[in-house]
Amino acid sequence: MANFDLMRRLTVNEGGKIIMLVMDGLGGLPMEQGGLTELEAANTPNMDRLAREGTSGLSIPVARGIAPGSGPAHLGLFGYDPLVYDIGRGVLEAIGIGLEVGDGAVAVRGNFCTVDADGKITDRRAGRIPTEEGAKRVEILQGIHIDGLNIKMRVGEDYRFAMVLSGDDLSDEIDDTDPQQTGVPTLPARAQTPAAERTAGLVNQWLAAAREALRDHAPANMCTLRGFAKDPNLPKYADVYKLKAACVAVYPMYKGVSRLVGMETIETHHDDSIQDEFNTVARVYDDYDFIFCHVKPTDSRGEDGKFDAKAAVIEAVDQALPTLIGLNPAVLIITGDHSTPAKLKAHSWHPVPTLLWAPATHLPDRAQVFGEREAMMGGLGQFPAADLMPLALGHALRLVKYGA
Amino acid sequence: MANFDLMRRLTVNEGGKIIMLVMDGLGGLPMEQGGLTELEAANTPNMDRLAREGTSGLSIPVARGIAPGSGPAHLGLFGYDPLVYDIGRGVLEAIGIGLEVGDGAVAVRGNFCTVDADGKITDRRAGRIPTEEGAKRVEILQGIHIDGLNIKMRVGEDYRFAMVLSGDDLSDEIDDTDPQQTGVPTLPARAQTPAAERTAGLVNQWLAAAREALRDHAPANMCTLRGFAKDPNLPKYADVYKLKAACVAVYPMYKGVSRLVGMETIETHHDDSIQDEFNTVARVYDDYDFIFCHVKPTDSRGEDGKFDAKAAVIEAVDQALPTLIGLNPAVLIITGDHSTPAKLKAHSWHPVPTLLWAPATHLPDRAQVFGEREAMMGGLGQFPAADLMPLALGHALRLVKYGA
Repeated sequence: MANFDLMRRLTVNEGGKIIMLVMDGLGGLPMEQGGLTELEAANTPNMDRLAREGTSGLSIPVARGIAPGSGPAHLGLFGYDPLVYDIGRGVLEAIGIGLEVGDGAVAVRGNFCTVDADGKITDRRAGRIPTEEGAKRVEILQGIHIDGLNIKMRVGEDYRFAMVLSGDDLSDEIDDTDPQQTGVPTLPARAQTPAAERTAGLVNQWLAAAREALRDHAPANMCTLRGFAKDPNLPKYADVYKLKAACVAVYPMYKGVSRLVGMETIETHHDDSIQDEFNTVARVYDDYDFIFCHVKPTDSRGEDGKFDAKAAVIEAVDQALPTLIGLNPAVLIITGDHSTPAKLKAHSWHPVPTLLWAPATHLPDRAQVFGEREAMMGGLGQFPAADLMPLALGHALRLVKYGA
Repeated sequence: MANFDLMRRLTVNEGGKIIMLVMDGLGGLPMEQGGLTELEAANTPNMDRLAREGTSGLSIPVARGIAPGSGPAHLGLFGYDPLVYDIGRGVLEAIGIGLEVGDGAVAVRGNFCTVDADGKITDRRAGRIPTEEGAKRVEILQGIHIDGLNIKMRVGEDYRFAMVLSGDDLSDEIDDTDPQQTGVPTLPARAQTPAAERTAGLVNQWLAAAREALRDHAPANMCTLRGFAKDPNLPKYADVYKLKAACVAVYPMYKGVSRLVGMETIETHHDDSIQDEFNTVARVYDDYDFIFCHVKPTDSRGEDGKFDAKAAVIEAVDQALPTLIGLNPAVLIITGDHSTPAKLKAHSWHPVPTLLWAPATHLPDRAQVFGEREAMMGGLGQFPAADLMPLALGHALRLVKYGA
């Protein structure tokens, strides 16, 4: 488990460069007894070479048996014990759809819902309206102005949206307005502390205005707010690791989590291919000590239950991999944030195959290819994901020894 | 991680004898891709037999990625989590050069430095004078007498020395006198607490006398003091493990750390061979429950980058090993305190090959020889070094079961 006081004490300002390549939801399962996993089935000559030369293992994202969400899973990879460092749901939702959460701002998740003439909820999800219908309501709500609040909103999927409130002295100590049942009215925003009274009052002004504005827009004629949260002020990479770090990712969620730990986010386009992403890593490589590169579709195909399609994404990563290898980083890590076996169509708790290639300092193990079963014999053993950063720093010769 | 309350509760006063053989810096790396480590390359028929019969694994000295110094690394082997139990630098330096640090005494590291006519530092290391020049200055300083202080001094390497102050009510809460830069005077000893004022005053009297005594001995015409520290009062082997324990080591540092945990140090000579050390173990074997035996040159050859010489030391240990095996201990552990790969010429973070041979109680694994890669498949897995003592006690049948 990363100990940031220890990291601050031992890290130095020089050493080799580190690339951390994360294939989201990399870990998998055989579809039937005796079969291979997605990673084992994929033809990956480049990763296999790195596994043969380097050292492999299995990382445990949060704790044994626990399937993580994307936020905690990435925090773990970045060295932040996800059971200690918590990102509020409002912040995760906001950064997940591309809203920035500035210092002191309060982020919150919203759901459109249906209320009857008495204001009682009849459907907590507004008939699961499609995203384009949600977008129309968000546009209406963006017309609301409350003195003392600067409001940014964006639609999420279906009936969901996120909102970031900024202004003076805002508090996130506010209860959810969703009563979690139908047949009762939505709740007012209730302050949990005296210091939050003012913010709660502003939110209630907004909720009243929202009720008016949505009145004629059934089924989505009201909304609830949940997960009020501020930027968790996580320790930053420059501080704890003395690393100038960058993120190359296409999806807003991963850019957002990276920003929370102090990485700079490099501009990408929403239709960038894996090769495009790796080219972007190569373009900015000279400017950073550490680059996190995120590949999304392994997870998406896993969630869809598409085994072959997930394996094909892994093959595409392998084909593009020479671009990263050619940069000659001191340390190249290839891993996932969690497993998303096509068989389960969901995030899972299975430990994640992880490869550490650091030709000047690694101890080669006996793993001959990159895959779950081979990694079980690997030199890294099974380890908490949050130990990966200290391992990377050690192999990059960026840590002085502990004690005399 | 050793839990001393648990150990006190479960340990019993009987059971088998334990020998812990530590080859300092044992773990290594291949010099080139596809090569063997020092331990793998060495011809070690006796260790290989024990590995075949017993159980192997890899111990993690402090935490993944962290290379430890000798002090913390040995504390870990002795069952003291090195991130919890800290030995002050002054104490480590003093015991490292053979000064005892009695109860209540304050140990401190000293550096000779060069000051100009205004007392400003021009060289913090006095031109890195050789040890014999340092020894002459120490002799001069030994002429200083301060009422209320009993002072023991010894030269270290080059421009370094250590000093142990004893007397009534001494405190170690004193700032370093080294300003960590040139062009400024050395600092006075400043008390961090009111209780330390008296000690700081005595130290300042000594510093004034030292300035006078060294005045004509440029380039080493002054000194700085760092790392004031007392004996950390670690829990003792007899208390937490109910073991009568001894240390057989040639170097003062390892004797010193052993004394801090309550081992008796057996007399050795500075030119004792490995076979001499093992003969010493055999000689005192009947008198102790636990014997720690330390072999230094594996680390020294590793630090020098001499792969073959390090392998030769391991072979010499193997040739002498029948002396230890012939004692028929209940548990024989062969390990290192950390890795010192000749390739890196330094302590490293790589997990340390460890062998536990306890014929009456061990579960043999599939490892056929003693080496890093074979240990990856071993029955002990990868484990924190501080777990080794509970494992040893368990295999020696010295622990009762936990709970009913």
